[in-house]
Amino acid sequence: MNIETQISTDPAKLVADLAVAGRAAQRKLSRLTSEQKAAALHRAASEIRANAAQILAENAKDLAAGEERGLTGALLDRLKLDDDRLAGIADAIDNVADLADPVGDVIDCTERPNGLRLSRVRIPIGLIGIIYESRPNVTADAAALGVRSGNAVLLRGGSEAVHSNNAIHAAFVRGLEAAGVPGQAVQLMPTQDRAAVGAMLTAAGLIDMIVPRGGKSLVARVQADARVPVLAHLDGICHTYVHEAAEPAMARDVARNAKMRRTGICGAMETLLLDARFPASGEVVSALVDAGCALRGDTRACALDPRIERADDEDWDTEYLDAVLSVAIVDGMDAALDHIAEHSSHHTDTIVTADDAAAERFLAEVDSAIVMVNASSQFADGGEFGLGAEIGIATGRLHARGPVALEGLTTYKWQVRGSGQIRP
Amino acid sequence: MNIETQISTDPAKLVADLAVAGRAAQRKLSRLTSEQKAAALHRAASEIRANAAQILAENAKDLAAGEERGLTGALLDRLKLDDDRLAGIADAIDNVADLADPVGDVIDCTERPNGLRLSRVRIPIGLIGIIYESRPNVTADAAALGVRSGNAVLLRGGSEAVHSNNAIHAAFVRGLEAAGVPGQAVQLMPTQDRAAVGAMLTAAGLIDMIVPRGGKSLVARVQADARVPVLAHLDGICHTYVHEAAEPAMARDVARNAKMRRTGICGAMETLLLDARFPASGEVVSALVDAGCALRGDTRACALDPRIERADDEDWDTEYLDAVLSVAIVDGMDAALDHIAEHSSHHTDTIVTADDAAAERFLAEVDSAIVMVNASSQFADGGEFGLGAEIGIATGRLHARGPVALEGLTTYKWQVRGSGQIRP
Repeated sequence: MNIETQISTDPAKLVADLAVAGRAAQRKLSRLTSEQKAAALHRAASEIRANAAQILAENAKDLAAGEERGLTGALLDRLKLDDDRLAGIADAIDNVADLADPVGDVIDCTERPNGLRLSRVRIPIGLIGIIYESRPNVTADAAALGVRSGNAVLLRGGSEAVHSNNAIHAAFVRGLEAAGVPGQAVQLMPTQDRAAVGAMLTAAGLIDMIVPRGGKSLVARVQADARVPVLAHLDGICHTYVHEAAEPAMARDVARNAKMRRTGICGAMETLLLDARFPASGEVVSALVDAGCALRGDTRACALDPRIERADDEDWDTEYLDAVLSVAIVDGMDAALDHIAEHSSHHTDTIVTADDAAAERFLAEVDSAIVMVNASSQFADGGEFGLGAEIGIATGRLHARGPVALEGLTTYKWQVRGSGQIRP
Repeated sequence: MNIETQISTDPAKLVADLAVAGRAAQRKLSRLTSEQKAAALHRAASEIRANAAQILAENAKDLAAGEERGLTGALLDRLKLDDDRLAGIADAIDNVADLADPVGDVIDCTERPNGLRLSRVRIPIGLIGIIYESRPNVTADAAALGVRSGNAVLLRGGSEAVHSNNAIHAAFVRGLEAAGVPGQAVQLMPTQDRAAVGAMLTAAGLIDMIVPRGGKSLVARVQADARVPVLAHLDGICHTYVHEAAEPAMARDVARNAKMRRTGICGAMETLLLDARFPASGEVVSALVDAGCALRGDTRACALDPRIERADDEDWDTEYLDAVLSVAIVDGMDAALDHIAEHSSHHTDTIVTADDAAAERFLAEVDSAIVMVNASSQFADGGEFGLGAEIGIATGRLHARGPVALEGLTTYKWQVRGSGQIRP
């Protein structure tokens, strides 16, 4: 109780103390080899497997408390662990351990006329703060990605998962320490005081980057209040533009998959742009409506199918995350590009076309983190991109964009090798 | 006068209007070829040469006003243009025009088992705000780097150079427009109201990045107040560690050059660490004192030469930017690394040694933007690194570090080429 009182009264000092400890651990972590880091992660996965019963018992406490607080079934499901899900968490740690370590990679090297040899070498970023909500798997996922890339992490999970997170974290750290990695490389915030989140967000110079993982209100708060760089996306307002030269069956299948495969993920299509010259628009919208999607159209789109409701201005800027879609008819590529430039959240935008020149123009001119041709926007995912895992998807413009995995958790330094050169 | 009044009362609206115009111009700029951008820059350089007399007349107004306001000789010298300096400004634009354009470079590409082809392609960042002080050449330098890399820039120069900046900007924009580049790709803030700087710093979503160019107080203010990502360095507290295995003459020459070649640049050495086992420390410090440098040492360093004063705690964290140097004796590599970890500003740190293993350990473990072996830290410069020019040196950890040139003014997007793939 004394610790909790002290924490509540000085969250800035708490965060500073944790950050100093985390940075010291990171300095040690950064000296380990790739193999040592991988071994430590495998050991962490084993500890989670070995402590499954205890972790599930702690999870049961969270579930009971959640039911008492009246959490919805969906939230309880996100919170819930069972043998399979816990095995999945351990397997995911093993997978991250086996990913190629970007640290030490040479980005480029040159030799200057004076004989200086320059190279840019990937190094860890340092201490990364992860702020997340109810899914306890993030505790292990984020910790594994951090350690694999030589970073320390400071985790701050949601209050509803506090017992689960503590149990997973404790097992993970025991595994690290058994393998010679300092446990403070992975710290879990010991308080649920919301002021501690504020202190993380303003800990410039102590925390190098913040990654929020969760709903829009969490991400919005982090982006608004952070003085530390943030890697995140707020919205996924993803467009699919069906060009006049699109193959009708492909347009239908890609659009249906982009919207309906899973409606709640950030890469789901939210707006369908149908070219006025595309001859099979009726077929595309019918397939969507038949699949159970509610469509909201502009005047011309509404004429395609009586089941389409009229969209209002807000629809073009709305991320439904549901079986709802806005549909507009556009007059050619220019109009499609203008619509996307105005309304896209710069996450993922797609064209369907059999015309290579149109495809290349779309790829060049759409200014989003991910631009696709003839593919469902639901592929916007680190795993699907072959990155093995992702810490998140970023729609900012600096450092890393789109799915961010291990490389995005590194930076670089210049190494300069001379033989006594002095500058004239 | 009406415009100025309106500007002063609503700086946020002014910045928003400028940003919207700049972003629209950038969208057009981003569609131009590398050759078109280069031609526009050559034309801008020609316009500056053709308008030399007028630019110098405007510069004379700034100089007269500066004398009246009692600016120091050093400040007046920074402000002053003459035929040679103006020719240098125009030549620098030509040089940037001839640098390789990073836009369109493919960072990497992969093909997934499902046939999706992924590539990461460099694109401009967007709209970059440059906030600078008295040197009018920054107006042209920053504009040229921005345009070469497809970015729009919003420039905000110092009040003491307002006439010079306006004249250079006007000529530059005439050149761009004559070559078909929208003039609003390069905008100069039309007011000296300091609130407009504040509005730039908080224009998240409108300005993509801020680069401050100037003294420490400017950079500190920008870093403290910005809600937009900032590319900058605050301090250049650069260390040179003379290892026990350093070749004495090389240690002497590198140390003297690192400190005394130019004492006022950010890459100048500020602290010399002499290994207790290095046998020629007396020779190194004598050479520095003989060259006119004031030395402030710890107890053991003071014993090397009676002309060394005693350092106090603050000296180890001070960027003198002058012929002053702090000197400490350290017991081996570990102590040197600890001192650097504690006091470095992560700009440039150097080891002098003939021992390759020691050199590689130093390169690996020092966590600074630039780490050097056997070379003067005064080489920390974009030109010396072969980058052709630099927008600045960054000591932050994300996006770009060390000397930042055209590549640092780009980001990337993912381009995904499919043939109708839908996600299972």
